[in-house]
Amino acid sequence: MDLTKIKDPSFLKNMSIAELEALSEDVRQFLIQKLSVTGGHIAPNLGVVELTIALHKVFNSPKDKFIWDVGHQSYVHKILTGRADQFDTLRQYKGLCGFPKMRESEHDVWETGHSSTSLSAAMGMAIARDLKGTDDHIVPIIGDGALTGGMAFEALNHIGHEKKDMIVILNDNEMSIAPNVGALHNVLGRLRTMDHYQKTKDELEALLKKIPAVGGTLATAAERVKDSLKYLFVSGVFFEELGFTYLGPVDGHDYHDLFENLHYAKRMKGPVLIHVLTKKGKGYKPAESDVVGTWHGTGPYKIESGDFVKPKATAPAWSKLVSDTALKLAKEDERIVAITPAMPVGSKLEKFAEELPDRMFDVGIAEQHAVTVAAGLATQGYKPFLAIYSTFLQRAYDQVVHDICRQNLNVFIGIDRAGLVGADGETHNGVFDIAFLRHVPNLVLMMPKDENEGQHMVYTSFKYDDGPIAMRFPRGNGIGVEMDEQLKEIPIGTWEVLRDGRDVAILTFGTTIPMAMQAAEQLEKENISVKVVNARFIKPMDENMLHTILGSNMNVVTIEEAQVQGGFGSAVLEFAHNHGYTPHIQCMGIPDEFIEHGSVNELLEEIGLTVNGVIATVHSMLPSKQKRA
Amino acid sequence: MDLTKIKDPSFLKNMSIAELEALSEDVRQFLIQKLSVTGGHIAPNLGVVELTIALHKVFNSPKDKFIWDVGHQSYVHKILTGRADQFDTLRQYKGLCGFPKMRESEHDVWETGHSSTSLSAAMGMAIARDLKGTDDHIVPIIGDGALTGGMAFEALNHIGHEKKDMIVILNDNEMSIAPNVGALHNVLGRLRTMDHYQKTKDELEALLKKIPAVGGTLATAAERVKDSLKYLFVSGVFFEELGFTYLGPVDGHDYHDLFENLHYAKRMKGPVLIHVLTKKGKGYKPAESDVVGTWHGTGPYKIESGDFVKPKATAPAWSKLVSDTALKLAKEDERIVAITPAMPVGSKLEKFAEELPDRMFDVGIAEQHAVTVAAGLATQGYKPFLAIYSTFLQRAYDQVVHDICRQNLNVFIGIDRAGLVGADGETHNGVFDIAFLRHVPNLVLMMPKDENEGQHMVYTSFKYDDGPIAMRFPRGNGIGVEMDEQLKEIPIGTWEVLRDGRDVAILTFGTTIPMAMQAAEQLEKENISVKVVNARFIKPMDENMLHTILGSNMNVVTIEEAQVQGGFGSAVLEFAHNHGYTPHIQCMGIPDEFIEHGSVNELLEEIGLTVNGVIATVHSMLPSKQKRA
Repeated sequence: MDLTKIKDPSFLKNMSIAELEALSEDVRQFLIQKLSVTGGHIAPNLGVVELTIALHKVFNSPKDKFIWDVGHQSYVHKILTGRADQFDTLRQYKGLCGFPKMRESEHDVWETGHSSTSLSAAMGMAIARDLKGTDDHIVPIIGDGALTGGMAFEALNHIGHEKKDMIVILNDNEMSIAPNVGALHNVLGRLRTMDHYQKTKDELEALLKKIPAVGGTLATAAERVKDSLKYLFVSGVFFEELGFTYLGPVDGHDYHDLFENLHYAKRMKGPVLIHVLTKKGKGYKPAESDVVGTWHGTGPYKIESGDFVKPKATAPAWSKLVSDTALKLAKEDERIVAITPAMPVGSKLEKFAEELPDRMFDVGIAEQHAVTVAAGLATQGYKPFLAIYSTFLQRAYDQVVHDICRQNLNVFIGIDRAGLVGADGETHNGVFDIAFLRHVPNLVLMMPKDENEGQHMVYTSFKYDDGPIAMRFPRGNGIGVEMDEQLKEIPIGTWEVLRDGRDVAILTFGTTIPMAMQAAEQLEKENISVKVVNARFIKPMDENMLHTILGSNMNVVTIEEAQVQGGFGSAVLEFAHNHGYTPHIQCMGIPDEFIEHGSVNELLEEIGLTVNGVIATVHSMLPSKQKRA
Repeated sequence: MDLTKIKDPSFLKNMSIAELEALSEDVRQFLIQKLSVTGGHIAPNLGVVELTIALHKVFNSPKDKFIWDVGHQSYVHKILTGRADQFDTLRQYKGLCGFPKMRESEHDVWETGHSSTSLSAAMGMAIARDLKGTDDHIVPIIGDGALTGGMAFEALNHIGHEKKDMIVILNDNEMSIAPNVGALHNVLGRLRTMDHYQKTKDELEALLKKIPAVGGTLATAAERVKDSLKYLFVSGVFFEELGFTYLGPVDGHDYHDLFENLHYAKRMKGPVLIHVLTKKGKGYKPAESDVVGTWHGTGPYKIESGDFVKPKATAPAWSKLVSDTALKLAKEDERIVAITPAMPVGSKLEKFAEELPDRMFDVGIAEQHAVTVAAGLATQGYKPFLAIYSTFLQRAYDQVVHDICRQNLNVFIGIDRAGLVGADGETHNGVFDIAFLRHVPNLVLMMPKDENEGQHMVYTSFKYDDGPIAMRFPRGNGIGVEMDEQLKEIPIGTWEVLRDGRDVAILTFGTTIPMAMQAAEQLEKENISVKVVNARFIKPMDENMLHTILGSNMNVVTIEEAQVQGGFGSAVLEFAHNHGYTPHIQCMGIPDEFIEHGSVNELLEEIGLTVNGVIATVHSMLPSKQKRA
């Protein structure tokens, strides 16, 4: 069928299973084709085609509420709720968001991007429903990976305790927990949905008494049986312990199985967890046979071959450069270990894991734990390399403050995807890190101007012995500079003059340096002489250089690809005023709003963080010179 | 015995159980007496006397590592490791810290204050031990409350998966989880520590096969037995599911029971969890019979009567004022609900819970979940009042950004204990909140000058409909002003001139206003005319007033009881420079370091945040006037 004609999910109500299966095939082909052009989270969405269709057939959205954990698996939901016609703009500037978005549709009742929030949100909605006295079904859909995030457990604990009516869909694609789900599980799961399930506890206890008392006492026998049973009911027991009724495992690609369990769950009271088994990439060979996760989210690809269409990189990927440098140093220094919260691929730690398997730890989606494990290692003389995305480090802010920095421990935090990230949009931008880190005592925070300086900073971080040190670096690739053979230490708190000038000093670092250099060159033509400084240490700053610049009465411009409020620019302002300077300083950066998806260049253009923006800022500070030019 | 003569725990090795029992009594009397003068966490420490002594007898600290979760229960540990003679200075300025402190003793291998970090730290230490190839025992001691914190679960999940040797002590004082621990549990627990426990899985499976197949198939029978067994093995199964060997419950006041289990655990491989039952306040009647938690941490008290010795408060406690005002408004507006992460007593929400039991939610130690539950409620039109301490809000930074502010939801965050907190010290100071919140888009952040303005701000918060709004308020009591009968809205983003002046404008809010007013009065005597502004909206600021002040070329001083880096002062600097002003501005606040325990006044004195400090700052900006005066 023509999916772009879908207005809302009501058309599903009268469809037969055969028709639904045909629809599933249409949805798959649509996704495979559209995403081959735009890129996107192809594998997770191919995995939930039947599940999403079944949910929309059994429940009534938006009265019933679907809460998509992480949210990258909501494409099928978007198609069924009337957004198929927007898929050509997926994840593009002003286009369809890659995650649920309330303003796109009344069917998107919760926005996400970060993992493990769905159960807490669902609990809030369930409380609201019960206070209002309505009967909506609240249906969070959470992956097995997201379930390892601590806040998901906090929610399970609370929901189970309060016995709230809620149907949790555990979308288990066999990637992290419960890998040993087998035939017995399927048999038992099916049995559980039958009528005799609800027989009384009394009858079951009578049954228990019939167990032969081999060990002499009922207690001993019961004890042993339980140990044995444990191996048979792995997932179920865990959730039942937390107060949930466990249903499953359910074949997530079988409509009969899905409907049976969803209908059964709908009739139950209290929290229910349906354990649904799905296959990531289902129906598209290249994605289906992917074992390492490269098809989780992709750029454009050729449908037939499954080859990715991307421009040949001319410089090393930042993640790879940092992780490979850490590995190289780890081979020479056995105190170095690597930790990732579920991002071994994204952080390019596969090689580290392969060559030093005992010293690379993937702790799952568990940022808080990752940070404090690093702290624990550091108390024992180790030098952990914590590889973490800027946006996910937000979740471990307290652990950075309380465990690492307060104890002043030698941990190297590699802050990946710092700055704007593009297509993933507002939930993934790494733009708060400077503002949430620079006020934390004891932390050194830096950002390199290019990949060569980056490798030296990694080296510097492991040589540094006076406490925590963090290096932020952007998503994507370096700029293609020559790489030094020999690694060297960069003295902590030293900046570098990239270009000298008299009228204006631009202080910046990382990705915004080229913008500053180009602006300086253009301004030169107007006889405005611009100094450009690589302010590579955001904290501590180069105080000598600051005194020189501020003492010279130059105008100062700071630029950062991060929230300007509380950021590097404000650090420069604080320094200036602390030392009695009253210069003209303009701070450029990301304004006080959330920046949505689009290409990084489009977004920078939107907020004026461009060469022309820098030139305009300088002009605004030098009105006379501007006129002269 | 004279506890002050103890140098290290080695003296325990040769003591009989009778001698240990006598020692326990001495330790209890010591704690009851010392804390009656200094105050401190009396009940938790009385609860772990035998447990701590047993741990130090069975293990060899500091080779074996004790990691005290939260850490307020480490007093007995401090006594046994040679610090009894410092208890007169407990929690006082430059005195013994109320939490583990590495520089006090080599036996303190990890510092805490916030909850639920111990297991992650222990995992880091266990990894380090295994990489080094040593055989230290790693022994985290975690309370049942702390176990609900998400990061504890992240750690259990990782530890169980990696099968690390570790002995987790679950110190269960029957306050939150597993309230139904009964006799059967004790019987079974004891059985588990016996030799037949380790029999093979094969034998147990053979046993399973003997279960009568009532339902027709083995699967059906097994299924039913399991449901029944669930009720018998509540705690154990949960931990065993996560890969731990569960021992217990153990009577935490019985040395025989403790030694049997600790010795048994020492011989086991892999992670073991010993479930120890203790009684908070054990051995001191008033604390023992406490049910609501007032003896958790106290000020000085009279030993005989159990009466607290504290000066009669002349003004309402801040927590009570805020919660009672919220309750009053909730009675008129059914959209208002209250949420606390395990602090119903500290946040004075008992009355709310009593009068509106369906609308007060204690979610346990689970700050992340608390924030996102509030967000979920807000999506459904509710107006949640999230009562949370500033220092604990750190743990939910990401949820504040990603779930509340990004979705611009109407949540009122009451940020309690903002500023320095005194005796609890560096882990509990609420001094980072301005710096970690003011860069978050959409958030309104304010602080009242007194309790009357405080009640109006609570009212304003619930009237406000444009997104999240937060009010920070200090620990302790108000200043005793008259309270208006009628609540009123304070226009968002408006400041208030408290005192007019020409030479200097002091911009400040909350607790530092009296300091500014006194300084202004003294400066007046030197003919320095000082304007004092109640800058009650930290964000958004009063832009009109800022333009007036900055346009007048007055010198400006900002004062905040919070980290000065990235704080309110830097917001004023940013505003000034954004608008082309180049005034003299000095920012006063907490310097870039962690501030330890002591009275708030002693600490303010130490960092120069005093009337004299303000006067000195003003003098430094007005050298000519200073000389003239």
